Amino acid sequence: MKAKNHQAAVFALGGLGEIGKNTYAVQFQDEIILIDAGIKFPEDELLGIDYVIPDYTYLVNNQDKIKGLFITHGHEDHIGGVPYLLREINVPIYGGKLALGLIRNKLEEHGLLRKAQLREIHEDQVIKFQKTSVTFFRTTHSIPDSYGIVVKTPSGNIVHTGDFKFDFTPVGDPANLTKMAKIGEEGVLCLLSDSTNSEIPGFTMSESKVGESIDQIFRSVEGRIIFATFASNIYRLQQAVEAAVKYRRKIVVFGRSMESAISIGLDLGYIKAPKNTFIDASQLNKIPNDQVAILCTGSQGEPMAALSRIAFGTHRQIQIIPGDTVVFSSSPIPGNTLSVSKTINQLYKAGAEVIHGSLNDIHTSGHGGQEEQKLMLRLMKPKYFMPIHGEFRMLKMHSKLAIDCGVLEENCFLMDNGDVLALDKNEGRLAGKVPSGSVYVDGNGIGDIGNIVLRDRRILSEEGLVVVVVSLNMKEFKVASGPDIISRGFVYMRESGDLINEAQVKLSAHLDELMEKKTSQWSEIKNEITDTLGPFLYEKTKRKPMILPIIMEV
Amino acid sequence: MKAKNHQAAVFALGGLGEIGKNTYAVQFQDEIILIDAGIKFPEDELLGIDYVIPDYTYLVNNQDKIKGLFITHGHEDHIGGVPYLLREINVPIYGGKLALGLIRNKLEEHGLLRKAQLREIHEDQVIKFQKTSVTFFRTTHSIPDSYGIVVKTPSGNIVHTGDFKFDFTPVGDPANLTKMAKIGEEGVLCLLSDSTNSEIPGFTMSESKVGESIDQIFRSVEGRIIFATFASNIYRLQQAVEAAVKYRRKIVVFGRSMESAISIGLDLGYIKAPKNTFIDASQLNKIPNDQVAILCTGSQGEPMAALSRIAFGTHRQIQIIPGDTVVFSSSPIPGNTLSVSKTINQLYKAGAEVIHGSLNDIHTSGHGGQEEQKLMLRLMKPKYFMPIHGEFRMLKMHSKLAIDCGVLEENCFLMDNGDVLALDKNEGRLAGKVPSGSVYVDGNGIGDIGNIVLRDRRILSEEGLVVVVVSLNMKEFKVASGPDIISRGFVYMRESGDLINEAQVKLSAHLDELMEKKTSQWSEIKNEITDTLGPFLYEKTKRKPMILPIIMEV
Repeated sequence: MKAKNHQAAVFALGGLGEIGKNTYAVQFQDEIILIDAGIKFPEDELLGIDYVIPDYTYLVNNQDKIKGLFITHGHEDHIGGVPYLLREINVPIYGGKLALGLIRNKLEEHGLLRKAQLREIHEDQVIKFQKTSVTFFRTTHSIPDSYGIVVKTPSGNIVHTGDFKFDFTPVGDPANLTKMAKIGEEGVLCLLSDSTNSEIPGFTMSESKVGESIDQIFRSVEGRIIFATFASNIYRLQQAVEAAVKYRRKIVVFGRSMESAISIGLDLGYIKAPKNTFIDASQLNKIPNDQVAILCTGSQGEPMAALSRIAFGTHRQIQIIPGDTVVFSSSPIPGNTLSVSKTINQLYKAGAEVIHGSLNDIHTSGHGGQEEQKLMLRLMKPKYFMPIHGEFRMLKMHSKLAIDCGVLEENCFLMDNGDVLALDKNEGRLAGKVPSGSVYVDGNGIGDIGNIVLRDRRILSEEGLVVVVVSLNMKEFKVASGPDIISRGFVYMRESGDLINEAQVKLSAHLDELMEKKTSQWSEIKNEITDTLGPFLYEKTKRKPMILPIIMEV
Repeated sequence: MKAKNHQAAVFALGGLGEIGKNTYAVQFQDEIILIDAGIKFPEDELLGIDYVIPDYTYLVNNQDKIKGLFITHGHEDHIGGVPYLLREINVPIYGGKLALGLIRNKLEEHGLLRKAQLREIHEDQVIKFQKTSVTFFRTTHSIPDSYGIVVKTPSGNIVHTGDFKFDFTPVGDPANLTKMAKIGEEGVLCLLSDSTNSEIPGFTMSESKVGESIDQIFRSVEGRIIFATFASNIYRLQQAVEAAVKYRRKIVVFGRSMESAISIGLDLGYIKAPKNTFIDASQLNKIPNDQVAILCTGSQGEPMAALSRIAFGTHRQIQIIPGDTVVFSSSPIPGNTLSVSKTINQLYKAGAEVIHGSLNDIHTSGHGGQEEQKLMLRLMKPKYFMPIHGEFRMLKMHSKLAIDCGVLEENCFLMDNGDVLALDKNEGRLAGKVPSGSVYVDGNGIGDIGNIVLRDRRILSEEGLVVVVVSLNMKEFKVASGPDIISRGFVYMRESGDLINEAQVKLSAHLDELMEKKTSQWSEIKNEITDTLGPFLYEKTKRKPMILPIIMEV
């Protein structure tokens, strides 16, 4: 961190070069404004890992400077890290009504709610600190109460867009173009803008177009409708609820996160429905099929979610019957394509009709395409530009768009997590690094799983394990018992008797030799076991299991 | 298998409800015509498995009836199983020149070439057996020498399309529409047709359109061009080679399968290039960048392929330099999206320009869209229809298209692998099953990995392993040494001393109790170890490692 004293410093602990764990900071002297604290869902190679969070070291070491955590909106990649951050440092959390509602649930689960300072914000508020102040502008996104954030510093204003698209016919409030134009007019030193869809030309389809498709489906389908979508997309839920009400269907909700989204949506007034719209699952069979709509989780094909269980016939309360229509109001996140496909196949096999895919206009992205990103750039007219929220290819493309919209090429900063951008009206430059990195959450361990454990998991997953146990009499230099060989995930032991016996004979002879030579170093004996067994097994099976020699002394 | 004596039986051992391991059979009385013998690449949950092949039991049991294996084209999902099938039964293999060339390489690797009977076919040939005969029609696909196959039986003609699209401006020969029309006119009892793209409206883009895009890239790029595509797409390679020649670039080839494709393509005359077009990698740095084209593997982001290694800077012979342009002449197969994305990001970071994605017209599918599938149906005018080569959703959609094109709904058969369709002019019905299923190939084990081993690999991959070793003196009912605890993939042992110690103390106390009670059943002792340790570790870590108790007697 080498910003000069009169410069604002901007950096990310997560969100650059990746989709996930968005965590940004603006620092001016001894004041730090944090923006978002997200988690990332692990990629496949992080075997068994539940979540990934950023390394919070810098924040812990500078906690006295942090004025507050400002939340742009309530998606997991922006709020999922809040409980983990709050374990380390206690800072006031500012956010919209819905985001705070979701954070409150989360903190309650983690037993952290009591100490949390949650402060609801409104768009026209200005939150003032000694040197910096923070204000907001309403955006449109796939969850209500989404805000962009302006951090005013003595060296200039830093704007963070949050996640956004420009939906001119949204469900809910439109984006505040007027305020954005004013912010731009006032002068933007640096714009941090959402890069997710920077590779997609044009404008993202409006949420109300999706509403028309939903209406069309509810109007024409005769059997039950099973409607799966992202639980957090309250607008989508609201549109499904409206269609159900309009066409006189009762709604049953399946899946924990869907139940909680509906309940929070109803509580906070984002979802409106007449009394008795929602019925209990136990009522399902008492109502004619054409008066039933089911809202459920599982639109990403998650194996444990409601829809997968319904498809595979393992749900306790409902199964597919002929005439059912299943709607995937979603698109598969990369990495989920196969599991979504599997669920669709299974639903067809079970006899359902399935409506999915981009041809049906039943889903739209929450992120703006290239034209929307350019609109933001033209409104904000920033001097410096820092593309955020995206893989490198997206950040890179977003920079090109910025240059097209008049930002100087040397004023665009393609940064990594941890890189510090130091800014004032005369200068923008990379100024050192703060600690950053990935911390793995597995069960209730935070950061205790590292590369060694992951490497072992990978070997075990592909090749399995062979344990060799031998007990040695080190006084007389004799094998007292064993070697015994046990394997898991390598071969099916019961059908591989010959292989195991042969290995045992080979090892046994070798151990006798070692004892004759009076080899007494256990590490040497272990290496000899591995070096004898490994090549033998590879020759026989062309597999390289992990070999775990265990020696006991008697 | 319950076809009547005068009926033709049609069934698949692989290829229905899946993309992969295509293996079809037409049987009339004691004559079996096999069509294709493919492998399938394993899905993620088949941890460590290399390939999946069909269960060949029925073929082994009826090998005396098999007249020949007829190959539609040389893709792995159609020929990859040949060596595995030939280990079990020796049958003559009929195929086009390229397919046989690829099979020959494969059999050589497996040491099976000497006994193989390879018979090259031509489109105008009729191969006659006693009751059945086989003939061919040329199709267009993403590999040269692709054929549809007609099996003539006394109860009618069965047509298998192979993989196809209708490319009216192909690279190479056009499809033989005339012959297809004649086959249709003669009468088709049953059509088995490629369903891959049945969910995609319209017509697949022509390969020559891709050629135009390639030409355009080679014309305008100034630095080196690194061109990645499927090695088996000889047409694409030919087009890249032509563009390189036209714009005076020398070609270097990286990646084993690409080298072998280029070599076989040149040998058999599918790829034409002036002498000295191909140069050795060692010459690379002696030639100006604008005179270099590199053909390489890795368009699917495969971590060990040439392009990934180039991107990540681990390739021995070449690294990215500014000015390089990398072309992905491919689209990611579902399941490879993330690895392709990772490679693209890394190439950008290394300073390359990257051309990829559907907007650039640099790739087209080898499979026809809905209109092409309908064209095939209208040409063949089958009485019965059996969609093949696709997941259930694709087969289902293809059936709808067939019904739209005049096939009676009751004459469309959505089948599973192993289902037998019995057919004559008056009747089409499901008539029992033949054994079918998936056989896993791992290393040189064929079929020795089953669900138990895979389940163990899954647990090990997500939760790791804890081994408990204890030696017991069963005469005096005393713990002689241990319990020792060793873990892999669970926690990092060096940093978890307290946890392990605590577990050891707990186990130790419990084992002492068991000894005092004179427990002598080892299975009981093992269960007690697992039941003590499992809940303790879960409480402490919220993880459920595999626990492997090992007891030695002294």
